[in-house]
Amino acid sequence: MAVPPSTYPRRLLPLFLGLFQGALLLFFALFVTYDEPSAQGEDTNLVANKVYSTFPFFQDIQVMLVVGLGLLLTFLPRYGFSTLTHNFLLLNFSMQWALVLQGLLHHFHHGQIHLDLHKLLISVFAAVTVLISVGAILGRASPCQLLVMATCEIPIYLASEWVIVTCLGVLDVGGTITIHVFSCYFGLGVSKALFRATQQPLHPKEIPTTSSDLMSLVGTLILWVFWPSFVAVPCQPGDAQHRAILNTLLAMSAGAITTVVASSLLKRDGKLSPGHLQNGSLAGGVAIGVVADMAMPPVAALALGSLSALVCVLGFRFLTPLLARKLTVHDQCGIHNLHGLPGILGAAASVVAVLVAPKDTSGSQPSQLSPTGGNASGVVEGQWGGRGVGGQALCQAAGLAVAVGAPLLAGLLTGAALRLPCLARPPERLCFDDSLYFKIHDQTESPGPDSSAEEGALALKEQV
Amino acid sequence: MAVPPSTYPRRLLPLFLGLFQGALLLFFALFVTYDEPSAQGEDTNLVANKVYSTFPFFQDIQVMLVVGLGLLLTFLPRYGFSTLTHNFLLLNFSMQWALVLQGLLHHFHHGQIHLDLHKLLISVFAAVTVLISVGAILGRASPCQLLVMATCEIPIYLASEWVIVTCLGVLDVGGTITIHVFSCYFGLGVSKALFRATQQPLHPKEIPTTSSDLMSLVGTLILWVFWPSFVAVPCQPGDAQHRAILNTLLAMSAGAITTVVASSLLKRDGKLSPGHLQNGSLAGGVAIGVVADMAMPPVAALALGSLSALVCVLGFRFLTPLLARKLTVHDQCGIHNLHGLPGILGAAASVVAVLVAPKDTSGSQPSQLSPTGGNASGVVEGQWGGRGVGGQALCQAAGLAVAVGAPLLAGLLTGAALRLPCLARPPERLCFDDSLYFKIHDQTESPGPDSSAEEGALALKEQV
Amino acid sequence: MAVPPSTYPRRLLPLFLGLFQGALLLFFALFVTYDEPSAQGEDTNLVANKVYSTFPFFQDIQVMLVVGLGLLLTFLPRYGFSTLTHNFLLLNFSMQWALVLQGLLHHFHHGQIHLDLHKLLISVFAAVTVLISVGAILGRASPCQLLVMATCEIPIYLASEWVIVTCLGVLDVGGTITIHVFSCYFGLGVSKALFRATQQPLHPKEIPTTSSDLMSLVGTLILWVFWPSFVAVPCQPGDAQHRAILNTLLAMSAGAITTVVASSLLKRDGKLSPGHLQNGSLAGGVAIGVVADMAMPPVAALALGSLSALVCVLGFRFLTPLLARKLTVHDQCGIHNLHGLPGILGAAASVVAVLVAPKDTSGSQPSQLSPTGGNASGVVEGQWGGRGVGGQALCQAAGLAVAVGAPLLAGLLTGAALRLPCLARPPERLCFDDSLYFKIHDQTESPGPDSSAEEGALALKEQV
Repeated sequence: MAVPPSTYPRRLLPLFLGLFQGALLLFFALFVTYDEPSAQGEDTNLVANKVYSTFPFFQDIQVMLVVGLGLLLTFLPRYGFSTLTHNFLLLNFSMQWALVLQGLLHHFHHGQIHLDLHKLLISVFAAVTVLISVGAILGRASPCQLLVMATCEIPIYLASEWVIVTCLGVLDVGGTITIHVFSCYFGLGVSKALFRATQQPLHPKEIPTTSSDLMSLVGTLILWVFWPSFVAVPCQPGDAQHRAILNTLLAMSAGAITTVVASSLLKRDGKLSPGHLQNGSLAGGVAIGVVADMAMPPVAALALGSLSALVCVLGFRFLTPLLARKLTVHDQCGIHNLHGLPGILGAAASVVAVLVAPKDTSGSQPSQLSPTGGNASGVVEGQWGGRGVGGQALCQAAGLAVAVGAPLLAGLLTGAALRLPCLARPPERLCFDDSLYFKIHDQTESPGPDSSAEEGALALKEQV
Repeated sequence: MAVPPSTYPRRLLPLFLGLFQGALLLFFALFVTYDEPSAQGEDTNLVANKVYSTFPFFQDIQVMLVVGLGLLLTFLPRYGFSTLTHNFLLLNFSMQWALVLQGLLHHFHHGQIHLDLHKLLISVFAAVTVLISVGAILGRASPCQLLVMATCEIPIYLASEWVIVTCLGVLDVGGTITIHVFSCYFGLGVSKALFRATQQPLHPKEIPTTSSDLMSLVGTLILWVFWPSFVAVPCQPGDAQHRAILNTLLAMSAGAITTVVASSLLKRDGKLSPGHLQNGSLAGGVAIGVVADMAMPPVAALALGSLSALVCVLGFRFLTPLLARKLTVHDQCGIHNLHGLPGILGAAASVVAVLVAPKDTSGSQPSQLSPTGGNASGVVEGQWGGRGVGGQALCQAAGLAVAVGAPLLAGLLTGAALRLPCLARPPERLCFDDSLYFKIHDQTESPGPDSSAEEGALALKEQV
Repeated sequence: MAVPPSTYPRRLLPLFLGLFQGALLLFFALFVTYDEPSAQGEDTNLVANKVYSTFPFFQDIQVMLVVGLGLLLTFLPRYGFSTLTHNFLLLNFSMQWALVLQGLLHHFHHGQIHLDLHKLLISVFAAVTVLISVGAILGRASPCQLLVMATCEIPIYLASEWVIVTCLGVLDVGGTITIHVFSCYFGLGVSKALFRATQQPLHPKEIPTTSSDLMSLVGTLILWVFWPSFVAVPCQPGDAQHRAILNTLLAMSAGAITTVVASSLLKRDGKLSPGHLQNGSLAGGVAIGVVADMAMPPVAALALGSLSALVCVLGFRFLTPLLARKLTVHDQCGIHNLHGLPGILGAAASVVAVLVAPKDTSGSQPSQLSPTGGNASGVVEGQWGGRGVGGQALCQAAGLAVAVGAPLLAGLLTGAALRLPCLARPPERLCFDDSLYFKIHDQTESPGPDSSAEEGALALKEQV
């Protein structure tokens, strides 16, 4: 399956991307247009206010995905360039692909798809699933494999989101179930099918250096700061959004402190593990999403944040090695600990929150960001579509089951497809190495004196 | 006082944090709730607009504190991980602690504390004082010492803020006196009592490298960009806030240029010192806070920005060595130059601004961010609570005196408490070193060939 | 022309900046004031809303220029400190200088210049031209030379902007023609006159390292994320702004993917070049500016983004070496590929967009950010000032011609002035080296053991 670098199929990536971009242009030329402002008779002020109330959140989320998540994944010291670029490329590819699919599925009125900032935002949310799933196989998969994975994951996400939110009426404003749990199990499925029963040996280039760990921590901090925007943007403006921001802030603050406690207690010498900090600090944000706008006391947000950080750190310490050993499931970045376990915890919390919610205040409302518009009619009929407290709690649990089972199965199939030789999985020796994909000048490779640098300079002059 | 690493008390940190987090959960469970939207009869649009007008500022401030300030302090080349993590941990701890104390002191109505974004923001402002004070002892104090310091500083800050803003009616919208001057002298007091009369030798690991200095400069630039948000968020929306933004922009722009002038003139060879740039560029923002929303001409903001950058650079060149030699006061990051001197300058400027202010336009109004709500009644009565120009000028001076004296005394006491052996001040040999607190893979420590890297990999596999 | 470091004129920089800052203070003292809120009778809410609708965009643009652009230029591995500092210094200097000139030229009513956030934003836009032009001579010019260049470029920009936008009525909301094309050809003109017919040899310190390339890529990603704010801030709030945001997002997303395709196809081994990624990903944003708010289908934005990325990458591969060899025009950062070629492409697109625009919907409106207020009267008369479709298309082309010719000529003159010996162009040996301007502790220079570090520490103690 792995191919030698000499015969590495270099033309597949530009061919795939070029064809996709061409098809996208055709699709947009035929079907996509902007809203005609006059046709809708909307007030200019109203449009302006809608932009002002969404755009800052949108920018925050872009910073999270492009800079924050990119840096978080640069803990691999010789793979920083690949990580940032592949993350960036996958975001753009998946976003455009989701735009096409969602346009086809939901917004095809009178032969035209009307594009607006809201639809772009939904597509970005869909792309997030790919960026998370990649974490399971980061460094051991070629960009072509990642693109094929994205191609498969986006339609499966859209289908699963439709089942969970529209059919089951699951409340999940921050995407805990639909995005985090889904993409975690998709990634694990892909990883299992791609690597099969062979346990991946620890690669020397896998070990973070101080500076790569530091970059990764900066990424964590950027994600930590902007996470409330991610959770709050789909909420109803007003009290629900205000509550979602506060709950997320509380959960992430408690999670940050609990991470330090847990990581310190796990080591005999009390030292903190960078990996725990990089991931545990964010676990609270993953878990709180599903209940962020529900009517629950602030203490619940704190408790949920603490608990998720705890399970995340414990997952790194005990579960990941166990999965690798017993089930030979390889999870490079520990996405199961950051997205899987806290996501399941959040889903469980949502069941509790629904069961104990006060009758009179309709806490949560369907996300405004669902590509299907959510179960809007149900809300009008009454709380939770008239299905009552027990019914809604059952739906939340059913939604979780779908978000675990469906992507696991689909991921296994996708992973099997990724084993196609033409997709050029890199050989073990060249894993975690930028030099396979980039023309970089590695100063550590050429320890020679200035003369060699000048040779390099001449060589560069020839080539660039 | 300093303990050998073998007997280093590793369990104190998680114990302290764990107990705090448990107590916080209990406190929140008993007393904290969200505003009931219906109970207050507020319009949804009103709530939404309040969120939209505060939240972007709030995010800017979070970026400043978590990413900007964190990076600024990473000029210590082997202490970047500790700096970022301790800064992040202290922010979360202090913010939660301030939330509790402020709840107890001010917002205890009917046995319940109503949490909102505004109160969270006030708590973040309180936490800023801790993050600044830490600069005096950075690298030579254990995380436990820092947490105890935070535990002491927050209540003292709240008390001093109450005296300065509520009792004295000092105008200080950007926290120049209440936050910057206060935390500077608190930090110096702690440093003096902690290190006593022993002059701290220059540690080899203290010397910045090019890359750590570069990271620090990036932190400065992030702080520089978002500083106007920090100053403007407590202002009355409208003209006062607009003026505060403009004044801050002008002061910081003039400060940036003056820093280059001053730093270049101080060296015989005209070269710029990274430390001067990292700090001087921000001095204008510290000084302008207290007068940012007052009715003063734009030239005053430029002049104040220039002057503060000048005193900051001169402070680094002359005052810091003098303080270290004559008074044996150790100031690791030069907080006296960045927060103390410009803060005093700003306070002096506010006296002048009050004295020369035109009678008819009520320039400044009490900060909206004071936990006590400011001297609101006074404003209704007339300009500056009816105490007249001279009285207000006197109050500004008195406020400065409180913000210097009180924290100095309290800091000395706190510093004495930090000498408790159980708080585990690191031994001199292990100061400024991440490896005391973190399980990191220091590539510079293991200069061996690939074989050793693979050994490390195996070792890692065992441990993680 | 180049001077030895021993006789390097160290006092010129602080002298120049100090005099400028003094003159600025005088100018502000005499002429600049804030808007009197009461005098204008504006509602407080109105002012507040204006701040809330502009300030977040303003902050985004500051992040782009100070952090994003600064990091993008740090691909020179030993010049990061200089790059960040010079970029920061030039932004502040140029912004203040533009503020003075614009005040003198346009806003001199009743002997007073009324300062507001909008005017500051216009000045920042003017400063962008300097930051772009610098890219042509980065690393080979002294800070004094850069400041003199900024001193010349700002008035020329203001004049050219006046001709293009006010006289010719060119539509260019995102500054594609007035900012990007202008500053590119100004920079090339300066470079040509400064270096004359001598081809600049490749300097060993010019070659990026992995980590400097990585920093630069992070800068690219920051610029990529915030670019829509840059294009959208001058738009009319409402539909035009909404459309500008969407068009920019689409163009940049398509550009990112096309860059990967083009860069991969150009190399025989299919590896990506970091320089292509760093620049090509942003080319779409440059090109889309001029048509962003026009009534055109979304597919046009995608196509324009793809095409600009393509010409940018091809430019790096073929045109830059050709320019260097045949015309001996040195373009250090490839500004002709990132700003020149995509800018021309955008201008051509604007001609097409004007020609094929539907008659009934007035697509674009003059930028709100023009210092001259745009050709406002023309708009009232009818679409495009009543000059009809053909006339407007001709104007767009004429504007492009002005934005190429005028700065080229002015740049040549400015470059000749930069050859003055007193401006201290650094000797070839010391180009691309921070140590000429900064007192840095270069760890790579002192490979000695700890003893030498301690010596350095002692030396540091003496000096700082």
